[in-house]
Amino acid sequence: MPSSRSAVPPFEVMTVLDRVATLRSAGRDVISLCAGEPAGGAPSAVNAEAARLHAEGRPFGYTPALGIRPLREALSGHYRRWYGVELDPERVAVTTGSSGAFLLAFLAAFEAGDRVALARPGYPAYRNILTSLGCEVVDIDCGPEVRFQPTVELLAAAHAERPLSGLVLASPANPTGTMVSRDELRDLVAWCDGQGVLLVSDEIYHGVTYPPGADRGASALDESDRAVVVSSFSKYWGMTGWRLGWLVMPEDLAPAVDALAGNLALCPPAPAQYAALRAFDDSSYAECDAAVADFAAAREVLLANETRLGWGVAAPADGAFYYYADLGPQLDRWGTSAAYASALLEATGVAVTPGRDFDARLGDRTVRISFAAGSAAIAEAVERIVAFQR
Amino acid sequence: MPSSRSAVPPFEVMTVLDRVATLRSAGRDVISLCAGEPAGGAPSAVNAEAARLHAEGRPFGYTPALGIRPLREALSGHYRRWYGVELDPERVAVTTGSSGAFLLAFLAAFEAGDRVALARPGYPAYRNILTSLGCEVVDIDCGPEVRFQPTVELLAAAHAERPLSGLVLASPANPTGTMVSRDELRDLVAWCDGQGVLLVSDEIYHGVTYPPGADRGASALDESDRAVVVSSFSKYWGMTGWRLGWLVMPEDLAPAVDALAGNLALCPPAPAQYAALRAFDDSSYAECDAAVADFAAAREVLLANETRLGWGVAAPADGAFYYYADLGPQLDRWGTSAAYASALLEATGVAVTPGRDFDARLGDRTVRISFAAGSAAIAEAVERIVAFQR
Repeated sequence: MPSSRSAVPPFEVMTVLDRVATLRSAGRDVISLCAGEPAGGAPSAVNAEAARLHAEGRPFGYTPALGIRPLREALSGHYRRWYGVELDPERVAVTTGSSGAFLLAFLAAFEAGDRVALARPGYPAYRNILTSLGCEVVDIDCGPEVRFQPTVELLAAAHAERPLSGLVLASPANPTGTMVSRDELRDLVAWCDGQGVLLVSDEIYHGVTYPPGADRGASALDESDRAVVVSSFSKYWGMTGWRLGWLVMPEDLAPAVDALAGNLALCPPAPAQYAALRAFDDSSYAECDAAVADFAAAREVLLANETRLGWGVAAPADGAFYYYADLGPQLDRWGTSAAYASALLEATGVAVTPGRDFDARLGDRTVRISFAAGSAAIAEAVERIVAFQR
Repeated sequence: MPSSRSAVPPFEVMTVLDRVATLRSAGRDVISLCAGEPAGGAPSAVNAEAARLHAEGRPFGYTPALGIRPLREALSGHYRRWYGVELDPERVAVTTGSSGAFLLAFLAAFEAGDRVALARPGYPAYRNILTSLGCEVVDIDCGPEVRFQPTVELLAAAHAERPLSGLVLASPANPTGTMVSRDELRDLVAWCDGQGVLLVSDEIYHGVTYPPGADRGASALDESDRAVVVSSFSKYWGMTGWRLGWLVMPEDLAPAVDALAGNLALCPPAPAQYAALRAFDDSSYAECDAAVADFAAAREVLLANETRLGWGVAAPADGAFYYYADLGPQLDRWGTSAAYASALLEATGVAVTPGRDFDARLGDRTVRISFAAGSAAIAEAVERIVAFQR
């Protein structure tokens, strides 16, 4: 008999992905714009290093629970390079994807029953991990008027009802791509520190921002030593399937995270850790920036075709690789975004994600397009969508 | 402020491993017999496949949450090969090591407050994962008189106090290496099924059994469709650092495990999944069996030197690669096994694990030697230990 806490909803996107796989194995030409994964994969130096280590037949044993020391140091160097922050490698925990980082951070910092605030719309795994651990999720309704991001006013109102223990902030956000400004981040950090609310800052889409040359994203580490920062090699470095992420911890959480990691995960994947040391080569940064430039081109294609798509309000895609829009007039014909997405996939082979994953209240009106597939795929998809709607 | 549920003890073995690393970087010749990891690493076909895939620069995206279908099918084939069991691949979940499997199984099957029985001595992560998830661990004291394994009588007594929801059974067990017989397993499974107690059967050391030609281990799947089986590529296949394991689920738990896996982990490491398809080549089984033959030789060296070691009672190491013994007369001199292990490491460079990780009550008397390092390392270690004790 499954436990009550296992009653988390599955991702809708997984259902769509299953259908994509079925259609493809039946020979259909499918453009999959569902999942947030860069098409190009890891930087070539990382692939080459992994190939070399495996070809040597090197035995990969357990690493320290918080990751190999050289990778923790390389991550510290990354914070110096991108943010100008001096970060003690002891505060960096390498994790099994950002998923592993969230699990460890939530277990280490929150008690069962604690109230943790999330923006709605938002990434569903935050909610589902917290719920499975017995925490109470507090939805902060964030519409276009606040660019889909929580504000101090909204948080203070939720905190006044009953005190919050934590806030998960994502900038750039999934599914909306919106970012908080440096001033907004400073205000949010100050409010959290002042109220004793733990800020968990999801910075996984840092470096994937638009237009080219835009701010890579402000880190909560710029503002406070008390925030938890979560990030990953999945997005900017294109290493989704490698399952490698990290956590920057306040000093007082480090022993708890270490003990939990050793028990819950033993260690992050070892081959990925050794190969990822090459992710910090100049050539790797250059390849990743080139991939971001192609995401930017794909985004331009979408923005240039907004009138032809004829949907409703879209979120400003400051970063990440998501275009999140209300379907507007298309809802008259299909009723829900899930029905629209299903019909679109069957008729045209274009797979988009219905919004219910991200927003239980308004998600039946919205869809998310991932433009991580690149500009050529997006241009073709737009033509198919326009023809489908005609 | 760390949460109360993060107050799990760190592994002692991690402290020892840190000291091993320090001594080695200072140039000391250390024989590490702490961690349960085969020295040889993955089968050569698995390494070659991983090297090939990475050299191609193949992008590794997310896989399905429960793993790629060909690997689930290959695991089903493994159950046919080793156990003669027909297993629907839909009941197999590929996981991030057996650690990921335990986390998913415990979350999917147990509520906070549920009582779950464990043998004492036992693997500490069972206890620590369960505790962090709010379950109550019920110690079943298992001494030499029951070969360190729970019996129906012991379980029935604990169940009568207050009903149990689950039992974690490990055969071969860590740290003792003891196995339950097929008849004992049948009785335990029947009792669990009859009482509605979920059996979680840790079969990670199957295939690593002695003497050569011994039973590879009886699977709970032989006896019941209601048990959860956990296993991994870490031990028999020597792939500890790759973080790849699996779970065989009763049908009614599969949707819950799928939803939890998609939220908590997204998917197991993709490169490891694709490479592990070659773990089921005949050549890979042959290499693994050869590695087990060397563990058997290492075990023989230990058993042949028991008198010279002069310790107390040791568990019969039916399987796994652990020799778990009371220190006997050595305790007069050192007081605790932790003090003994520390002095031994500093004086001789031989690292063993003090028993406190495995047994909070009697572990100050015991040590665990991992003979996964192979027969040559064990022979040298024995000489150093004997000289140290002289």
